Amino acid sequence: MIQRIDWNAVPWQNIRQGVDRKAFGGERATLALHRLAPGHAPRPHAHEHEQIVYILQGEVDFHVGDEVVRLGPGGLLVIPPNVQHYAEVVGETDVLNLDVFSPARPDYLA
Amino acid sequence: MIQRIDWNAVPWQNIRQGVDRKAFGGERATLALHRLAPGHAPRPHAHEHEQIVYILQGEVDFHVGDEVVRLGPGGLLVIPPNVQHYAEVVGETDVLNLDVFSPARPDYLA
Repeated sequence: MIQRIDWNAVPWQNIRQGVDRKAFGGERATLALHRLAPGHAPRPHAHEHEQIVYILQGEVDFHVGDEVVRLGPGGLLVIPPNVQHYAEVVGETDVLNLDVFSPARPDYLA
Repeated sequence: MIQRIDWNAVPWQNIRQGVDRKAFGGERATLALHRLAPGHAPRPHAHEHEQIVYILQGEVDFHVGDEVVRLGPGGLLVIPPNVQHYAEVVGETDVLNLDVFSPARPDYLA
């Protein structure tokens, strides 16, 4: 039986004010679609997972270690394991940000 | 130095008739955006990588082992390692299909 989902049919999960998530994954990686609202409170954090960021909508400043990378739609970056990072929305459009975590994050699928 | 890219500024790489690709990745996973044109020749194949499919545009029948899964925008599925699979475009719209491979595929980034 193939593991599948339709994200359009799944409600957003509210994580904290201004941050919503949908998640899906396999054994080796987890995909998380994040919706970030302008003005959401940044929350610097780090984790052992490698995280690949792919911006689908909006504009965002990604703070990764000591660097700041501005990304718009079509922009991608790699956050190496254990490097502190956070996102900051630029402008007044919600950001849609697909994050790919490896290894998988079963905590996101609970 | 953060590894980053802007896919909007990168030309499509033609793989074969009706199939184009852009790829990017880290140490643990590779993201490949595939553009599939209606009528492209299906090419069943298998690989050791787990593959997570996320459809961004268009409609596609994914043949995975003995199953056929129809996906539209927002649809996702997991192709387990070593299971034969191929995609078949449904309708007349190009499909944009983000594939996440774990482990990474340096062959896609060459």
